[in-house]
Amino acid sequence: MVLEAIRHAGAIARIDIAKRSGVSPATVTSITSELLAAGLIEEVASRGKASARGRPRVALKIRGAAHRVAGIKVSQRTTTVCILDFEGNTLGSHETPMPAPRLSPERMVEYLVATLAQACRANGLRAEDLSALGLGIAGIVDAPRGLVHWSPTLAERNVDLRALLRQRLNMPVFIDNDANLVAKAEQLFGEGRGVSDFLVVTIEHGVGMGIVIDNRIYRGTRGCGAEFGHTKVQLDGALCRCGQRGCLEAYVADYALLREAGVNMQTTGADDPATGLEALFRAAKAGDETALTIFRRAGRMFAMGLANLVNIFDPALIILSGERMQFDFLYAEEVLEAIRGSVVQVDAALPEVRIHKWGDLMWAKGAAAYAMEGISEIAVERLAGNVA
Amino acid sequence: MVLEAIRHAGAIARIDIAKRSGVSPATVTSITSELLAAGLIEEVASRGKASARGRPRVALKIRGAAHRVAGIKVSQRTTTVCILDFEGNTLGSHETPMPAPRLSPERMVEYLVATLAQACRANGLRAEDLSALGLGIAGIVDAPRGLVHWSPTLAERNVDLRALLRQRLNMPVFIDNDANLVAKAEQLFGEGRGVSDFLVVTIEHGVGMGIVIDNRIYRGTRGCGAEFGHTKVQLDGALCRCGQRGCLEAYVADYALLREAGVNMQTTGADDPATGLEALFRAAKAGDETALTIFRRAGRMFAMGLANLVNIFDPALIILSGERMQFDFLYAEEVLEAIRGSVVQVDAALPEVRIHKWGDLMWAKGAAAYAMEGISEIAVERLAGNVA
Repeated sequence: MVLEAIRHAGAIARIDIAKRSGVSPATVTSITSELLAAGLIEEVASRGKASARGRPRVALKIRGAAHRVAGIKVSQRTTTVCILDFEGNTLGSHETPMPAPRLSPERMVEYLVATLAQACRANGLRAEDLSALGLGIAGIVDAPRGLVHWSPTLAERNVDLRALLRQRLNMPVFIDNDANLVAKAEQLFGEGRGVSDFLVVTIEHGVGMGIVIDNRIYRGTRGCGAEFGHTKVQLDGALCRCGQRGCLEAYVADYALLREAGVNMQTTGADDPATGLEALFRAAKAGDETALTIFRRAGRMFAMGLANLVNIFDPALIILSGERMQFDFLYAEEVLEAIRGSVVQVDAALPEVRIHKWGDLMWAKGAAAYAMEGISEIAVERLAGNVA
Repeated sequence: MVLEAIRHAGAIARIDIAKRSGVSPATVTSITSELLAAGLIEEVASRGKASARGRPRVALKIRGAAHRVAGIKVSQRTTTVCILDFEGNTLGSHETPMPAPRLSPERMVEYLVATLAQACRANGLRAEDLSALGLGIAGIVDAPRGLVHWSPTLAERNVDLRALLRQRLNMPVFIDNDANLVAKAEQLFGEGRGVSDFLVVTIEHGVGMGIVIDNRIYRGTRGCGAEFGHTKVQLDGALCRCGQRGCLEAYVADYALLREAGVNMQTTGADDPATGLEALFRAAKAGDETALTIFRRAGRMFAMGLANLVNIFDPALIILSGERMQFDFLYAEEVLEAIRGSVVQVDAALPEVRIHKWGDLMWAKGAAAYAMEGISEIAVERLAGNVA
């Protein structure tokens, strides 16, 4: 708790830690001397005014050099690595193409180990310099167990990816669903700073969601929570790539838009989905009625899904996060209007909906931040073990 | 925390409180002596074996006589009162008809004050014997503020019902949405005991939901969360009594079933919704195809809504709670099968769905339990204030 208070504040005097945490000053002094001895924090001159006796006040901050952690975001085309110090400063990043959109567990592990080594070399580090790895992967992940129930990037189900990576890497490994790590990144570095309860929704190949309740990622009992993209918006509706019918994703994800375009338009014959989607978007912008009706229905379905989230969570904030925010039919004023028209009506301001465009590096940064949290917990547990 | 540990255990020795809570034995002794002095707990002979020296071991329990609290559940036809002692034992109950389905705030307050007085008299108590009142009401309630945004039982919106009741009653008043209080009752007395994360869904005049995450009721930012009944299951779908279209409630609530029955059937001409619903149910049981198709579609829509909850929350348990569990088409094996077919598929057991039939007294008991939690917090804060 003390470590988190220091991380949150940046630099903070002992007495202010006591005030904010409700822990007695004596206990704070005792805990912080343990953290100092372990090299996790360091003393710096406080920016505040000096004490009455003219002595400069001393503040505590996280010691950046204490640990270096890597975060990896795996997607079907590229993999992004981000390396942070223990203070959260970015030391470097690296991007490599995926050898294939879907890999066997063994090839995935080989590829990730090699990618991590490359990223270290490219940034003048050795693999031994890292204290932990955080990994974000699309799909259904049981984060506490490090188990990937299913991922579009893995050729097998129920892969104990953490155990496989631990066999090859001499460091703790933390794995989570990539949308949860976007939520983590938004919480620490983005639009979610200082907000205790918020939702993050991402639209890319699929529709992802991260839930932050009481400052913590909510994952569900089996790690299968927050599957917003597979909530049903239509009984017996459109076929989803998950095999079920009527999923929100089957109306708003890339493949859903292209599927409709494929039926009625010649504009999007491209093999590459990204190119096809660009073409569809250009056609809509140019006023093509078919393209417009595709985006508009997707927007209405998206609004219905978001309104359902508001009706269930009543969050302070919803962040629509990702790289493709240029497809603005999904984020248009008429979509926001449709949300307003579908939520329970009370005389209180609606949750704010913020649109946040950022790239794969931020996802990787979220993964690294997740590893940093993990390594902090391990360090504190070790300290508590020494004390006891 | 110590008080909750004692309440949870029933009777527990000081040393076991220390073990379970991670607080030092010295601190437990100090806190429990404060609680003893304040009369909130008392010492009893432990049921465990005597200590080595033959001295009987002493356990601590909640002192039932410390406080008496009342819980009231308001519904459109009747109001139920339940009185508990501080240990949670039921001291008495009382039921009165509502003078009208919908009351002005002033009449509601008059009615509740009179009902509470009646309930006290009927159980040999005076109003002054009560330490707190908990009130459960259908609608949208901002519980921390005691504000009723909207209720089908109130003729006005944005009623500060807590302030109005406080003016008339010389005790703290705690108000919440009735479904949240069912969740509270399930957590303390029902199927939710020992489960940290679960959902409660009720179907009566409307569809309600209570969310328990990490042992606490989740209410959302404005108290408008958990509005499961108004999540949309169909774009531009059936008209709901809230004025919007496609709400789950507009397919599965009493009025939705009767609306469909009214179009095509002569069996349900009764003015009384309860009688009409009974007739529709009997017709379905007797094999009437129209009645069957009404219940079956409702069941499929209900399954879709419940599957969406599983996809979002991945809870350990869903409790379908309420009085009308006899309408078993909504809870039939084919509904559970439809849920299984609409949730994200992983190789892990599905959340358990339990059906729990209970009446208005349990809702009132949940309201009383909510008041008991509130009065405990006040008592502990008062103690902390005395100590500081």
